[in-house]
Amino acid sequence: MGVVTPPKQDRSRATRQKLLQSAVACLAERGWSGSTVAVVAEHAGVSRGATQHHFPTREDLFTAAVEYVAEERSEALRALRPEGRAQAVAALVDLYTGPLFRAALHLWVAASNEPQLGERVTELEARVGRETHRIAVRLLGADESRPGVRETVQGLLDMARGLGLANLLTDDAARRDRVVAEWADIVDRVLD
Amino acid sequence: MGVVTPPKQDRSRATRQKLLQSAVACLAERGWSGSTVAVVAEHAGVSRGATQHHFPTREDLFTAAVEYVAEERSEALRALRPEGRAQAVAALVDLYTGPLFRAALHLWVAASNEPQLGERVTELEARVGRETHRIAVRLLGADESRPGVRETVQGLLDMARGLGLANLLTDDAARRDRVVAEWADIVDRVLD
Repeated sequence: MGVVTPPKQDRSRATRQKLLQSAVACLAERGWSGSTVAVVAEHAGVSRGATQHHFPTREDLFTAAVEYVAEERSEALRALRPEGRAQAVAALVDLYTGPLFRAALHLWVAASNEPQLGERVTELEARVGRETHRIAVRLLGADESRPGVRETVQGLLDMARGLGLANLLTDDAARRDRVVAEWADIVDRVLD
Repeated sequence: MGVVTPPKQDRSRATRQKLLQSAVACLAERGWSGSTVAVVAEHAGVSRGATQHHFPTREDLFTAAVEYVAEERSEALRALRPEGRAQAVAALVDLYTGPLFRAALHLWVAASNEPQLGERVTELEARVGRETHRIAVRLLGADESRPGVRETVQGLLDMARGLGLANLLTDDAARRDRVVAEWADIVDRVLD
């Protein structure tokens, strides 16, 4: 059997995905100021022309990249069937300690000083935040009709975000594991 | 009575403080890439020569600035006599929602991509973190000899840090107040 050339549409989609993944990797490793469109195109092995075709502006590329990876992470979380709340809490905290969070953090911080980027990132953050909250409620088996439950889940996600930030400069895994174990226990009791 | 000229040492100290406060303000408003030494000197109304005399490098200026303001905030917190834990939790969360946190966040994120800055900021963050933890334990009246209490306090500070991050792009005060009220209640029950 000979090599099958994928249809044009599939190749275009593959190029787009390579660019999105490279954009997130560059953002996580080099920050916003080090992540130009040219750097991402080179990292992905895609021509400048093809890059510009998929993403006309730098803002288009990076907001799409963070959204794409966030959506991938959400899908993985939606498929998760945790055995108990401790596992659910650990999975939620994991969302904030990998390259995606690092990339998103660089994008947020850059957006706080660049009005052009700010509006789009704010909108993206709100959308991803709502979806993460919905997933958290399901994973934790939380009944939001009870008073305080919504805020308990939100606080847990805020804690996860703070743990992600604490992991930015040093490997904070050992301390984080102890904090997560304790708070998983507390949240379990509060939600019951 | 004529105008009294302050002694040289006092003037030097006042210049230093003006530079430190300007550095934090610039960092919070313009981010790391927008905060050069020249920008800070102009903001403070101090000559380049005097600025260089106090802070030979950009890294010296900004790490000193974040440390100075963190120390000022710590002093204010140490002087606080909260009426109950809800007030203590609110005061701790306030640490992470003002210009100091915003400035520190820009410095941390820049440090994560700049090795020269990274080492100093990591050391500074560890020192400020330990002091904040000590203050939190005292304000909350937490007994760290009991198992889990240390991690409960740490998780609360992680949550406060995450709330600070959530406040970066939009005014998150209304949601934050509800989360803080609920979590203050949870922490109060856990620590008793």
